[in-house]
Amino acid sequence: MKALVYHGPGQKAWEEVPDPVIQDPTDVIAKVDTTTVCGTDLHILKGDVPAVEDGRILGHEAVGTITEVGSAVTDLKVGDRIIIPAVTNCGKCSYCKKNQASHCQTVGGIGWIFGHLIDGTQAEYVRVPFAETSVHKVPEGVTDEQVLFLTDALPTGFEIGILNGNTKPGDTVAVVGAGPVGLSAIMTASLCGAGRIISVDMDENRLAKARELGATDTVNAGDADAIEQVRALSNDGLGVDVAVEAVGIPATFETALKIVRPYGTVANVGVHGKPVELPLNDLWISNVRLNMGLVDCSTVGNLLNMVRSGRLNAAAMATHRFTMDQMLEAYDLFANAAEHQAVKVVISAA
Amino acid sequence: MKALVYHGPGQKAWEEVPDPVIQDPTDVIAKVDTTTVCGTDLHILKGDVPAVEDGRILGHEAVGTITEVGSAVTDLKVGDRIIIPAVTNCGKCSYCKKNQASHCQTVGGIGWIFGHLIDGTQAEYVRVPFAETSVHKVPEGVTDEQVLFLTDALPTGFEIGILNGNTKPGDTVAVVGAGPVGLSAIMTASLCGAGRIISVDMDENRLAKARELGATDTVNAGDADAIEQVRALSNDGLGVDVAVEAVGIPATFETALKIVRPYGTVANVGVHGKPVELPLNDLWISNVRLNMGLVDCSTVGNLLNMVRSGRLNAAAMATHRFTMDQMLEAYDLFANAAEHQAVKVVISAA
Repeated sequence: MKALVYHGPGQKAWEEVPDPVIQDPTDVIAKVDTTTVCGTDLHILKGDVPAVEDGRILGHEAVGTITEVGSAVTDLKVGDRIIIPAVTNCGKCSYCKKNQASHCQTVGGIGWIFGHLIDGTQAEYVRVPFAETSVHKVPEGVTDEQVLFLTDALPTGFEIGILNGNTKPGDTVAVVGAGPVGLSAIMTASLCGAGRIISVDMDENRLAKARELGATDTVNAGDADAIEQVRALSNDGLGVDVAVEAVGIPATFETALKIVRPYGTVANVGVHGKPVELPLNDLWISNVRLNMGLVDCSTVGNLLNMVRSGRLNAAAMATHRFTMDQMLEAYDLFANAAEHQAVKVVISAA
Repeated sequence: MKALVYHGPGQKAWEEVPDPVIQDPTDVIAKVDTTTVCGTDLHILKGDVPAVEDGRILGHEAVGTITEVGSAVTDLKVGDRIIIPAVTNCGKCSYCKKNQASHCQTVGGIGWIFGHLIDGTQAEYVRVPFAETSVHKVPEGVTDEQVLFLTDALPTGFEIGILNGNTKPGDTVAVVGAGPVGLSAIMTASLCGAGRIISVDMDENRLAKARELGATDTVNAGDADAIEQVRALSNDGLGVDVAVEAVGIPATFETALKIVRPYGTVANVGVHGKPVELPLNDLWISNVRLNMGLVDCSTVGNLLNMVRSGRLNAAAMATHRFTMDQMLEAYDLFANAAEHQAVKVVISAA
């Protein structure tokens, strides 16, 4: 088969590789019908994730069709269309039993293994471990594009941004960064009843997209008084109830700390490359909560329900479409997303 | 009356001052029967809390007897014995209505005002604002010493350490620092059903006190493998469910981050004097929660109930006793607590 293979920092190829095979009784093999590229893939290509070795097939998001099942698989069958989430859930370790698959101990302590510790989904076929406890069947009448972003971006924005942010009905939520995960937080904030949803970004195109996807207000982070603008949008000027950090750099983390009210929550979603300064000398007295983490993909079923009922237009982040033989073009475009006003790319089997 | 008056960094005196008077209809005046000294008072004396002005009477913990009530006070009367918590609750701002008096907006945004923004409790008499929504009556048969530490140390350890730590039955809780507030967390951890309570400190005398007050295990923080010792005490070696930071310096905060398991909580109780480094490059994926804050004193009633039922021996932290005319000696001893194996001092009206 053909697959997108990582060959060390800066090096990738769309090349011929062996087809995947069943390795464990709980595996399935799926034909990849639709996949995408994530910001994390770009980090890997920069060499920021040293656990990824030369020869690894990248990608951790896909919708596919089962072509083979392991001997222990009883509830999935050949021909089933499945959502393949970024995080693998073994169903039996102490973390997975609590639906905290982000820290699945069976697969090594971090549940994100596709395109990281095992071969991923940017390929014609993929081996899916612990399939029965990890994947979701695609219901009749639902398109691939409607559920593709339920594999990572949307549950990340929802679980790590909105739910970890302790969002309650009527809350003011500010999302710093309007990339795919920030937009996912914006799209899902109203599902928790957010009263006001503020998007903060430096790119006016992204802010326009944020308004289209549910932001009630936008603030350009480049404005000298951006912090004051956000605080002024809260009921009493004390700051927002929930500040979602969806970029992953010290400056945006600092913004999140500055806009949150006493007893509010900063939910860090951004993937950080270096430490940040936490001014505990000011914050010890602030009764602020700070949450962070990798997605569990524990809400994929809930989000699927919302897609089916029409409450969540999960396909709305798709801005550009490719076929698999255009994999390198898809990467190139996504790597320059701002320039192309791209949010997410959809890559379909040819 | 006589009172302990702050006169700028390093300067204090036990001196004659005017008696307090009713200023607002919701005030009461109380004779201070018993008070104590807090680590925060020592910080003030070092000049670390610039909001405290020359001439301010210090102290924010007391048990007293009402001598006068304001015109709006109907549920308290002269002669009532009352617990006077460190935090003032106006009962009507958006924070106090949620029992989050740490951020009472009526008194300036921070509910701790005694010995800070208004005159405090290290005096023969004290004016108590918003008395009906702030104080608790001392039940018949309960001594001052049994409830004195319910004014600050115990609710701080309980609310900001144990409750903010999301402590659940069976959890492993580690408390870094075995001063009064760390010991308060240790004493109250079992009230949330902690399965194992680990005290971490460098002072063997304090570790012995921690065992006496409820720690099931102790680890000397000076040991080269202290972190590994703590992690080894967790069920699966992944770390503790709840790490309480009860010192307030970068090194102990770092320890707390290193001993907590994925999906665990670091509850910062320490009063920090400088920023700390937060290694979000490692932690973004860790699903750790970090909580911090000033006590609300929202659990004083609950703790009082536990004192009455015998579940909480709140007097056990009292190690040294003085009368008010020995106020300066009490300060001297408390400032050198480790040397005197002191935990808390009790200072009674002569």
